[in-house]
Amino acid sequence: MSDSPTLFAARGSLRDIEEGTAFAPKFDDAGLITCVVTDGGSGEVLMVAHMNAEALVRTIESGEVWFYSRSRARLWRKGETSGHVQKLIGLRVDCDQDALWLKVEQSGAGACHTGRRSCFYRAVVRTASGAPPVLEFQDERVFDPREVYGGANEQR
Amino acid sequence: MSDSPTLFAARGSLRDIEEGTAFAPKFDDAGLITCVVTDGGSGEVLMVAHMNAEALVRTIESGEVWFYSRSRARLWRKGETSGHVQKLIGLRVDCDQDALWLKVEQSGAGACHTGRRSCFYRAVVRTASGAPPVLEFQDERVFDPREVYGGANEQR
Repeated sequence: MSDSPTLFAARGSLRDIEEGTAFAPKFDDAGLITCVVTDGGSGEVLMVAHMNAEALVRTIESGEVWFYSRSRARLWRKGETSGHVQKLIGLRVDCDQDALWLKVEQSGAGACHTGRRSCFYRAVVRTASGAPPVLEFQDERVFDPREVYGGANEQR
Repeated sequence: MSDSPTLFAARGSLRDIEEGTAFAPKFDDAGLITCVVTDGGSGEVLMVAHMNAEALVRTIESGEVWFYSRSRARLWRKGETSGHVQKLIGLRVDCDQDALWLKVEQSGAGACHTGRRSCFYRAVVRTASGAPPVLEFQDERVFDPREVYGGANEQR
């Protein structure tokens, strides 16, 4: 996909970026943009991940969600190992076009490599003023990550 | 708040981080952590912003949401200019503890400095294969940003 960059507009004036209709996503110094993924049904936040330009092009072209894995330094089709693919049902961009919100249909049991539906399975709870907060588990496992990922510790 | 860091646990083993009850948020090289803010009522994603350790401590201690502004290089209490403060009603952390999900009660008309309820007021829409996507406005303005911010172009 050597023509990938042509899918995106150049960054224009602040007014163009905030009030225009040209899609000019801002990638950071590492070439990445932050993505929030929510479940199209429940609205729950499933995960936060990153895309590079190529992952974004592939997502838009295919309708299946791709990311860029910083730890593995490569493109990553969500669900390529687990089968837990994400079908894109809605894509939004924020005011300054440096973050994306993806609404998806999550295939399979869950999005998180730990076996939960969402990566956000723990609440941060305050016990007393000045005391360290503790984490409380909110979501049960919905699949066995050892069976699905075979020991790979990434949410593929 | 010189004792801020003591509110957070040291980063332990992968198992501690993913399956433990100690809150050990991971701040990036710039000292920041990505935050997704959703409306506690509608579930809509309102904004994506960043906190440093101090902003996170203040948020947990006060129950009002603080961020760290990268463009202004300073702490920022959401709503300090606009009055559109965010009351924290739920805080979650993701599997590897490098992203936070805040559920808030949004005071005032909206979260976005452009006058919309959410910063994600435009959908990315594909017109034809290979053609650049365009943005379609989904949300009307709910307040006049010039009246609320007086020309300051930040979502304070």
